[in-house]
Amino acid sequence: MTNDISQGLNCPVPMNDYPTIVLAHGGGGKLTHQLIERVFKKHFSNPDLDLMHDGAMVSVDAGRIAMSTDSYVVSPIIFPGGNIGELAVNGTVNDIAMCGARPKYLSASFIIEEGLSMAELETIVASMALSAKKAGVSIVTGDTKVVPRGKADKVFITTSGVGMIPEGRLIHPSRIKAGDTIIISGTIGDHGMAVMSVREGLEFESEIRSDTCALNGLVEEMYRVSPDIHFLRDPTRGGVASTMNEIAASAHKGIRLFEKSIPANENVRSACEILGFDPLYVANEGKLIAIVSSSDAAKVLSAMKKHPAGTESAIIGVVTDDHPSVVVLQTAIGGERVVDMISGEQLPRIC
Amino acid sequence: MTNDISQGLNCPVPMNDYPTIVLAHGGGGKLTHQLIERVFKKHFSNPDLDLMHDGAMVSVDAGRIAMSTDSYVVSPIIFPGGNIGELAVNGTVNDIAMCGARPKYLSASFIIEEGLSMAELETIVASMALSAKKAGVSIVTGDTKVVPRGKADKVFITTSGVGMIPEGRLIHPSRIKAGDTIIISGTIGDHGMAVMSVREGLEFESEIRSDTCALNGLVEEMYRVSPDIHFLRDPTRGGVASTMNEIAASAHKGIRLFEKSIPANENVRSACEILGFDPLYVANEGKLIAIVSSSDAAKVLSAMKKHPAGTESAIIGVVTDDHPSVVVLQTAIGGERVVDMISGEQLPRIC
Repeated sequence: MTNDISQGLNCPVPMNDYPTIVLAHGGGGKLTHQLIERVFKKHFSNPDLDLMHDGAMVSVDAGRIAMSTDSYVVSPIIFPGGNIGELAVNGTVNDIAMCGARPKYLSASFIIEEGLSMAELETIVASMALSAKKAGVSIVTGDTKVVPRGKADKVFITTSGVGMIPEGRLIHPSRIKAGDTIIISGTIGDHGMAVMSVREGLEFESEIRSDTCALNGLVEEMYRVSPDIHFLRDPTRGGVASTMNEIAASAHKGIRLFEKSIPANENVRSACEILGFDPLYVANEGKLIAIVSSSDAAKVLSAMKKHPAGTESAIIGVVTDDHPSVVVLQTAIGGERVVDMISGEQLPRIC
Repeated sequence: MTNDISQGLNCPVPMNDYPTIVLAHGGGGKLTHQLIERVFKKHFSNPDLDLMHDGAMVSVDAGRIAMSTDSYVVSPIIFPGGNIGELAVNGTVNDIAMCGARPKYLSASFIIEEGLSMAELETIVASMALSAKKAGVSIVTGDTKVVPRGKADKVFITTSGVGMIPEGRLIHPSRIKAGDTIIISGTIGDHGMAVMSVREGLEFESEIRSDTCALNGLVEEMYRVSPDIHFLRDPTRGGVASTMNEIAASAHKGIRLFEKSIPANENVRSACEILGFDPLYVANEGKLIAIVSSSDAAKVLSAMKKHPAGTESAIIGVVTDDHPSVVVLQTAIGGERVVDMISGEQLPRIC
């Protein structure tokens, strides 16, 4: 397909004002070019994107790169603390950072439902540009498709990205050892409950806001104090419980979490209680879990707490040789329970 | 988000048979992992994908890479000559090849409507794997989201990819010179009319089949005989007419096309006549347009005709200094007309 975000023709047709997206905005013709000029290029413009071709041509150093992709279908598309566009940029930035890589180039592909308001689209695109800037990445290529009313839901965004992995960094399940320390970068459940509170019309004294943010700066700080981080992952869909189960299974190790040590905001805990969710299973969009050797734990934790994205970082568990592939929670009241991977779907369209 | 295609947990739960996709297949829990194991990993498995992380970690040489992305929303998802999955793989492979690059790594992200039949999904995934194999690329990372019934239309697929640009290759509008020769790699309109014929219930003696195919092999053959190709682009959405207009505008050159020389299958011409389409505006998914110096044209054309993807290649036009940014068609009956960029949307959801 044509890399239509990056084509910047001087449209000879009058710039009609379309208050909403129409099918012809996805037709590859004049209206597509107007949309690109007036919305996408206006906010995303950079030399690589503006080159106008089917794909971006960018430079890399020899070595290992990380490559990641995610589609975002969150509903509503704008929620307290963020919107689908910020989520899409930060999410792919974070997936690349979780490989120990430095995110550099992003692509963005939009599937838009006919009838989406142009103002909402521009709000989303503008905040994607801002999120990319904050994270230090360039959106270098993209695509736009429009489908008839009722064939999508407002807008879906797929971002992909690449980043360079500096020499010497290796994130791999085989590096996870018994005795390793498990650290989280802050409170859990904020994103999921921010979205659910809007959907359910819950109101709290202090609004629950999504934690969506880029974590690549935090990761660099962590590597600065410890070049030997064993594992990184962001506990998004499925929450901390699902992520820890995935890690336990792929490393064939046991994981023991300390319930008392897991940070969560009071309003998130209340919302979970009211709606019947366990915060361990609720999605985060600006948190990471790091697994480091116990000897490195104190300095990594200290570096994390000094970074704006990690002020509430905490040690929440330990890797064990007991019960391989199983996650056990030491509860606040002193008991123990197995934390299983989620079976069904408790929070559809959370991201 | 979790790179869920690449997570291969040994699910301890029984492998229930789901004949259709349910919301929980997108929940990030057990059913997501089952779907990955039984459909995605079954077909896409490779060492990079199987590493199981948020993103793939792969190696590159120093230099320039091409990066591209496209979302596919074609309806119907299976059509004569191909399906949405093949289209998604070939389309991104081709966008990278049109940068003069050698496509290497692909990502694939699925937005699935609840209720999609598992059999259809597997057909699509299997043919993506086959298309990737044919094109010599690996699908190294991915994502799956499921949305409720009525919030998407069966399945949308977004592929992204990267490829290395060999030293010395430069595709850029500034390289297009007056006097350059314009070559197309075969018949026009096949993909668009294959999809439209199904939608409209048209039947012909010989079925119209999509031309979807990977063009990177053809591009390598072209570079083998001429390291100096000026420009490449695949005329997808919007057809040859829109692509030539984009090229004319970005190069600030005039383009003159010879109607008599533009190849098209007879059944495509008939279908266009019946449905009121101009084949110049109909999408292709396995054709490229090359712009080369007139001194290189004969050897490039000859190399193209020898390649299976280019047997019907033809010289279809010339670059001029007259009428910059305008595309003129020399008609079969000897007249001339301006070929404008399409204004509206004549073929929604063609790719």
